[in-house]
Amino acid sequence: MTPKHGSLIYEGKAKRVFDSDHPNHYWVEFKNDATAFNAQKHASLEGKGELNCKISASLFKFLEKEGISTHFIDTHGDNWMLVEKIDIIPLEVVIRNIATGSLCKQTPIKEGTKLTSPLCDFYYKDDELGDPLLTDARINLLGLIQPKDKILIEELAMKVNQILIPFMHKLDLILVDFKLEMGFNNLGALVIADEISPDNCRLWDQRTLNLNDRILDKDRFRKDLGGVVEAYREILKRVQALPHKSN
Amino acid sequence: MTPKHGSLIYEGKAKRVFDSDHPNHYWVEFKNDATAFNAQKHASLEGKGELNCKISASLFKFLEKEGISTHFIDTHGDNWMLVEKIDIIPLEVVIRNIATGSLCKQTPIKEGTKLTSPLCDFYYKDDELGDPLLTDARINLLGLIQPKDKILIEELAMKVNQILIPFMHKLDLILVDFKLEMGFNNLGALVIADEISPDNCRLWDQRTLNLNDRILDKDRFRKDLGGVVEAYREILKRVQALPHKSN
Repeated sequence: MTPKHGSLIYEGKAKRVFDSDHPNHYWVEFKNDATAFNAQKHASLEGKGELNCKISASLFKFLEKEGISTHFIDTHGDNWMLVEKIDIIPLEVVIRNIATGSLCKQTPIKEGTKLTSPLCDFYYKDDELGDPLLTDARINLLGLIQPKDKILIEELAMKVNQILIPFMHKLDLILVDFKLEMGFNNLGALVIADEISPDNCRLWDQRTLNLNDRILDKDRFRKDLGGVVEAYREILKRVQALPHKSN
Repeated sequence: MTPKHGSLIYEGKAKRVFDSDHPNHYWVEFKNDATAFNAQKHASLEGKGELNCKISASLFKFLEKEGISTHFIDTHGDNWMLVEKIDIIPLEVVIRNIATGSLCKQTPIKEGTKLTSPLCDFYYKDDELGDPLLTDARINLLGLIQPKDKILIEELAMKVNQILIPFMHKLDLILVDFKLEMGFNNLGALVIADEISPDNCRLWDQRTLNLNDRILDKDRFRKDLGGVVEAYREILKRVQALPHKSN
């Protein structure tokens, strides 16, 4: 059920963004495409778009109730989301609670190590460059954000982490790490954008100790473990099962 | 002419370190081996060890005169250096004045761009991990150095840069970037260690505008330009030609 949308503004690996009939809103279509390793690995997974749209909508609504501003406005049909138009900051903000993935390739920290405190990594959002890790000095050199905004972004990402860890814990899920994108809305407020789904969160199932079975996120696709859509469906089931705290 | 040395302490890609008969001194042998791309490329270049030993000795002596502490004590024969024993910090400190190399692969900054201010990058000294770039947050997480020492290290590296830029300029050389290793001596002072040579400094000849001819450093080896030893010999000639400021 496609909403009445305007022209295509941007097509990413997992989403398409369209103009809407409201000057400050976009329509986002969640696609079934799955990519990994900077799009070197690619597949279409039936149902993924819908699941990520619904999981993201649930998590955005939950975060809003917890006082976090997001770009979420509404959903439409199975895989369409109406969002606020924002100026996206060209950084990917990754918060890590447990070491895995690239962190374990780039440091001597062993896979599965619980970090003493959450680690905040910034990456430059640029597919051609392979989304490289950025130091503070390189962020400043590139003039990507003001130092004061960098602090705000890190604080907001850490706050989201502190809200999502206990939320996921109640669902028997461990929030291993996640990637956020942010931007400023037309009022100048910093808001969470993009999506919050198993595509950009690593979630481990606390109901099993099996190292592969516990993976309920895109690592199933990266590692060829199969059952990707089934894992995402399990996440949606758990996220929707918990009654959100009412206002 | 090999000095009377003790047992081998450490063998790196370009140097061997031996015990000496003094408890606080090491003998360092500069080898002819050249490696690049994390040792995936390897060659033996006749004369390179001697040239790097002599260039490093000259630059260490110059820096000492300028008030910078280094591990340098003396040379012996063609390719042996007596140095102070220090606790090496497992970081490589890279100062960049002009963008080239990995910086241009990891950011949209174009090759040859003069940076608005020198960039200080920290890398984890670990061959197995490929000497990965480190953010401040990762340095803290790994507990590699105290935050106060990180500031001292960066200040010292920047000071070396401010001393070497005009020195090289007088030799018609552009100091593009360089890598330093540092450590604390037995008095707790921070000193420059390792070497300062065309193996870890990028130096461009101001006497030519030809993009390949101007390269007088290890990039000649990395890029298969030939004339590696000849370029290093040219650097030694220029470094030794300039009478050092006397004390």
